[in-house]
Amino acid sequence: MADQAFQEISPADFFYRNKEIAGFANPVRAIFSAIRELMENSLDATEPLGILPDIYIRLSFIDDNEDENLFVLRVEDNGSGIPADYVPLAFCQFLFSSKYKLKQSRGTFGLGGTMTILYGQITTNRPVKVISSTGAPKIYEYTLMIDIERNRPIILDRKIYDNSDRWHGTIVEISLEGDYSKAMPKILEYLKQTAIVNPYANITFVDPRGRLYKFERTVLTLPPPPKETLPHPHGVDVEMVYRIIRVTKCRTLLDFMQEHFHRVGKRIAQRFLDFAGFPEDADPRRLKPEEIVRLVQAMRNFNEFLPPDANCLSPLGEEILKAGIMKELEPEFVAVTQRKPSAYSGHPFIVEVGIAYGGKVPSGEDIVLYRFANKIPLVYDESGDVSWKIVKSINWRKYGLMPGMPFAVLVHICSTKVPWKTVGKEMIADRPEVSREILNGIRDVARQLGIYLSRKERVKREKARLSVFAKYLPKIAEFSTRLAGKEKMPDINEILRRARRLEED
Amino acid sequence: MADQAFQEISPADFFYRNKEIAGFANPVRAIFSAIRELMENSLDATEPLGILPDIYIRLSFIDDNEDENLFVLRVEDNGSGIPADYVPLAFCQFLFSSKYKLKQSRGTFGLGGTMTILYGQITTNRPVKVISSTGAPKIYEYTLMIDIERNRPIILDRKIYDNSDRWHGTIVEISLEGDYSKAMPKILEYLKQTAIVNPYANITFVDPRGRLYKFERTVLTLPPPPKETLPHPHGVDVEMVYRIIRVTKCRTLLDFMQEHFHRVGKRIAQRFLDFAGFPEDADPRRLKPEEIVRLVQAMRNFNEFLPPDANCLSPLGEEILKAGIMKELEPEFVAVTQRKPSAYSGHPFIVEVGIAYGGKVPSGEDIVLYRFANKIPLVYDESGDVSWKIVKSINWRKYGLMPGMPFAVLVHICSTKVPWKTVGKEMIADRPEVSREILNGIRDVARQLGIYLSRKERVKREKARLSVFAKYLPKIAEFSTRLAGKEKMPDINEILRRARRLEED
Repeated sequence: MADQAFQEISPADFFYRNKEIAGFANPVRAIFSAIRELMENSLDATEPLGILPDIYIRLSFIDDNEDENLFVLRVEDNGSGIPADYVPLAFCQFLFSSKYKLKQSRGTFGLGGTMTILYGQITTNRPVKVISSTGAPKIYEYTLMIDIERNRPIILDRKIYDNSDRWHGTIVEISLEGDYSKAMPKILEYLKQTAIVNPYANITFVDPRGRLYKFERTVLTLPPPPKETLPHPHGVDVEMVYRIIRVTKCRTLLDFMQEHFHRVGKRIAQRFLDFAGFPEDADPRRLKPEEIVRLVQAMRNFNEFLPPDANCLSPLGEEILKAGIMKELEPEFVAVTQRKPSAYSGHPFIVEVGIAYGGKVPSGEDIVLYRFANKIPLVYDESGDVSWKIVKSINWRKYGLMPGMPFAVLVHICSTKVPWKTVGKEMIADRPEVSREILNGIRDVARQLGIYLSRKERVKREKARLSVFAKYLPKIAEFSTRLAGKEKMPDINEILRRARRLEED
Repeated sequence: MADQAFQEISPADFFYRNKEIAGFANPVRAIFSAIRELMENSLDATEPLGILPDIYIRLSFIDDNEDENLFVLRVEDNGSGIPADYVPLAFCQFLFSSKYKLKQSRGTFGLGGTMTILYGQITTNRPVKVISSTGAPKIYEYTLMIDIERNRPIILDRKIYDNSDRWHGTIVEISLEGDYSKAMPKILEYLKQTAIVNPYANITFVDPRGRLYKFERTVLTLPPPPKETLPHPHGVDVEMVYRIIRVTKCRTLLDFMQEHFHRVGKRIAQRFLDFAGFPEDADPRRLKPEEIVRLVQAMRNFNEFLPPDANCLSPLGEEILKAGIMKELEPEFVAVTQRKPSAYSGHPFIVEVGIAYGGKVPSGEDIVLYRFANKIPLVYDESGDVSWKIVKSINWRKYGLMPGMPFAVLVHICSTKVPWKTVGKEMIADRPEVSREILNGIRDVARQLGIYLSRKERVKREKARLSVFAKYLPKIAEFSTRLAGKEKMPDINEILRRARRLEED
């Protein structure tokens, strides 16, 4: 029919047309997302590789013109750098990335950096400049644009410099349209919260007015680096098994199960194959299509696989989380807890929860919730997030708490696969396994805060009671003395002292 | 660095890895999304082309096995059909679609159907069957799979049948894993709400237990079909202007502006070029990169462009909306309003709002909100949606309303570009222009309901007052008669009649 003109578009074109789903809906959101995406790439290029991050972000007006909403954004890091040959593709081609592995990282879609460059290009028509070195003898400086219709990088210029002091890191400089004055509160909130969960990073931000924001490292130890992991049998589908079969060297299903799946040893492999009804020596490469479906279904239904090992994850740990909270919120009371590793559809995850009371903790009409995933703060779209739903469902009075009191809840989820609702990474989807851990984590720290508050309240009440006691005791003593016909009053100070000591224990 | 293995993946692979962002997070969501995506493709293949939709959906257990969560889903429509050569690409290649145009349609990302087929394939390893004809002398039946790593269709089989009675339409049959019993409430809610906003469609659904759900057409007129439109100057970016320049035949900017942009006539083009500082006879194909940026910036800032014309949109209209509400909710009171067309970033949109009270309207703890976009109901993730935010912000007491009362709010947004937050199309983003129209629309109908309820209340009160009056009037009359020393009492019935008549006016 005349009305149905079919058309093929490139991945770059798809994200160009749908930039709002990747966090680039308008000039306010875009400038926030640009800073966020480049900063997260920098954190991913440092901390997991054992490098204490030093990140410098500068936002300035293009040509010093303060009247237009056009900016230059420059982000520098001391990360691992990108091999020269990969720079054009890694930055200017969609769906080309180092993040397509089963491993915990901040980036997962592998398109934040390229999306940022694309947004800069379509709003300012200027190229991106990327300077990088892996610590090799040369530093490469590329000037690049994206051929959006073809999803290919365009190399406008390439310069090579000597790297005598073996610097390693990456510098990205783009031009973009943005609305900094409106985005500023969210950007600063984002940086503050990033400092809470990355207290081992130095972050410097210079804004267009020349204001300097410095978040200094207070912890010198990095969390254990995440490791790449094998797929857990519970999270496998037919496509994945096909792909593994295509490359496997195993000749028997018994080897196959042990070689390619997470935490499958010989005994478990044997028990599983027996459960699934496959002979141990069947050749995986000769399975028929229906047999593969049967194998996958059995993997899903077999209950004796070991739960995923959280060794591949990189949670913050209670120490670092507490240090981060103390540093930025200076609360009167803080409690943190790390839940035991759990899994949803074969993806391991760990939930960490904190609660802070008093000090610099803000109090609002609603409960203050800080959300984090794989060490990145989520500052938009709170009401669509699983943690928000849980916070709202809790009966806070049970813990002596109410909205409006100065307390904040922190929830951090780390996983090889965070269940994001959107490519813009702002909301976490509601998976029962994840919700349960969040709920239990919040209950745990809320209980601790509840105990603290009720003890505080009791001490206050006892103090009041003792002061009443202290007021009337001399009268009572005097009266009793007279009634007993004695002359010398007993020493009431000793009694009061003892009562006080009793209360304080 | 050893740790950074770069990899290129295909668009099919990207969505395979991230199926949760397209609405296929788990077996419950997946079976809902599969029905929804195929049904919306069917609606898009009928109504906009002037065909009254007849849609038949059947979900059945694979091999009649009720123990496993494996289903066959078959969706038939009487739509325009797909030209035979396009079938493999349209169904089994990502980013190949007929929806990449500036036009209002239910689908926008052009990947719902392919995503559904992919999900079926990775859970059951079975191919999809597509039978289609455009009303030509032949019907084509394809058996297809997706090569996910290459993003290409695999044609397993193709059959050709005679089409002597010139049938047109499409039949899609896939196998998939799902959790129907858990998804059922949402699926039925989705079908009911689809019937509300598409009262001109016949929809039949047969579920795996053989239960039949029929939603019959009650309106024979279709809304005006949406038209393809030119981009509005306010929504243009540098990339778009480049693309237009590459294909334009215009030799002067004056022609260029009139030919390629929405509602730009000669006088406005002249005033704009004067504002932007370009000569009218400049050749668009010779603009320098910085000049293109300047042109785009000027388009964004020029205030005299005409607002987008809503002729290209296809709203329901107050009649159809009212008919749909009456049909499914049978309320005691209903008010609907269609707001004037407006635009955000150059995309025209229209908001339609309804309110229904009493009858079959459910009442819950919270306010009941039905959300629609381009005639599709949104039944997941309510709390992340702009309409929910607005409904929560309204002071309902002002209109004599409170949560818990049996009233429901309906919000329908239609646009050439709905500001979706996610590829799964469940939440609409908060754009100030859109929020304002929703707010004003809700206020308008809420006011009407408020007036209805306060009149109802007043009538009730007046009735009560009159009944008191009627009770005491005879006594008063008797007493007055005696006091006046008269014998005959006046006719009080006449007075009561007149009071009642006064109240009823």
